Amino acid sequence: MINRLVIIGVGLIGGSLALALRNSGACREVIGVEPEVETLQRAQKLGVIDHFVLDACAAVREADIVVLATPVGAIAPVCRSIRGCLDDRTVLTDVGSVKAAVVESVRKGLGYLPKNFVPAHPIAGLESSGVESATANLYQGRRVILTPLPENNLNAFDSVSRMWEQAGASVETMDMLHHDQVLAATSHLPHLLAYTLVTSLARLNEQDEIFRYAASGFRDFTRIASSDPIMWRDICLNNKSPILQMLGHFGEDIDRLKKAIESGDGNQLLSIFQHAKQVRDRTCN
Amino acid sequence: MINRLVIIGVGLIGGSLALALRNSGACREVIGVEPEVETLQRAQKLGVIDHFVLDACAAVREADIVVLATPVGAIAPVCRSIRGCLDDRTVLTDVGSVKAAVVESVRKGLGYLPKNFVPAHPIAGLESSGVESATANLYQGRRVILTPLPENNLNAFDSVSRMWEQAGASVETMDMLHHDQVLAATSHLPHLLAYTLVTSLARLNEQDEIFRYAASGFRDFTRIASSDPIMWRDICLNNKSPILQMLGHFGEDIDRLKKAIESGDGNQLLSIFQHAKQVRDRTCN
Repeated sequence: MINRLVIIGVGLIGGSLALALRNSGACREVIGVEPEVETLQRAQKLGVIDHFVLDACAAVREADIVVLATPVGAIAPVCRSIRGCLDDRTVLTDVGSVKAAVVESVRKGLGYLPKNFVPAHPIAGLESSGVESATANLYQGRRVILTPLPENNLNAFDSVSRMWEQAGASVETMDMLHHDQVLAATSHLPHLLAYTLVTSLARLNEQDEIFRYAASGFRDFTRIASSDPIMWRDICLNNKSPILQMLGHFGEDIDRLKKAIESGDGNQLLSIFQHAKQVRDRTCN
Repeated sequence: MINRLVIIGVGLIGGSLALALRNSGACREVIGVEPEVETLQRAQKLGVIDHFVLDACAAVREADIVVLATPVGAIAPVCRSIRGCLDDRTVLTDVGSVKAAVVESVRKGLGYLPKNFVPAHPIAGLESSGVESATANLYQGRRVILTPLPENNLNAFDSVSRMWEQAGASVETMDMLHHDQVLAATSHLPHLLAYTLVTSLARLNEQDEIFRYAASGFRDFTRIASSDPIMWRDICLNNKSPILQMLGHFGEDIDRLKKAIESGDGNQLLSIFQHAKQVRDRTCN
């Protein structure tokens, strides 16, 4: 049983975790921390948190687990604000979509890397953001990737694992740098393509007419372009090299396709599409 | 009431039209034409068509409406096979995702452009293909774009409009070349991006692991990469210049994004993502 859980950043991800743990009775008390009081009041009203505390340092003092659930770019300043306030026994974790940069931000912010800091990343989300979108079942049946550090103590690792299992997720571990590469491919690249597709269409003259004729495939395809821009700015700034590498691969493959279209090479086009369809059908169904 | 409807190409699109019209009682008899007898037998078994005829020329002789529902690349050879067989009163239409090239294929295949040929494009589809995927409600509430020709007679235009309305769709008209540009943006480009994303991921070493960690956003994003490869080869070959233009726009926007990531320009990234999100939320919800 978690006595006191502190969620710093009460949005979709942190709020859904709080709801799931409260629902499953895994947690006695959830404290929310946020820069904006209004968000905290809404979170309390929605039953996502029990209380809120504006002073992050005071909030974390007696916590069992502190979850950093802000956008990745806010991790360092948040950690500075709780510098010297963490108990030795308090477990610290995060939910960021990049891991190497988060570990560095925690180290910089706190001035050291606590043995109790276990980096984590739930592979779940919605295109909507904010505490109003939080739901208790967001993590049901989803994967959470832990990227434990060599210095981690086993108790801390177990606490974070158990917490996510109680929220309905299945926990796996992965090397930190490998995580950042895998996610650049499966999550960061698709988000950037969706944002860019909407950008490209938006600059056409008849943009409103254009979007009217979009079929359901287009809606599915661009749904993730409605995700939180701050979160995605921070991911781009903090997972630069794996993202640029994937954009490079993608650019080469687009060039190959372009050449096949330009030269009217039907066999090449067919083989590209058949291969992609085979892979997609095999892996996603 | 349509006395005899002939569907040439009994797949998802043609089959769903047949089912919708049979269900709504708008049609007395549906004849299927396909190169493969097995497909026709399955279509008959599934109640999609009443009969089938292997000789396309014989099939169209007494038809009220003939629908060309093959991939775009098969339009010219199919039209050659019915050359001289069309009655003056028979209405001819198609369902292709490109229009200018289809009109040219019909002209070449038949040797002339019939006054009764009304090009049409239902904005509907599924990632699955084949007659087994056909459903009577595929066009319910969807748009069908007609791109009538200057030489069209009004009766033919009305017949095709009425047919699609009876299948549950709402009918609009558009200039042929404009259609091809709009669809390059809203349909062809997203499909090519989805195929290419899967291609780029498939060439990574750990491809199976990679796809395991794809979240639901990725599945939505790449669903259209399971579409029929032959159909998409034909679309690429027959809507070259609008597609290459859109790929060009997209490439420029990706380059702008890449530069912002490389230089760590957070403000530029935020403004790109915010703008895309605004447009997407405004136009797709």
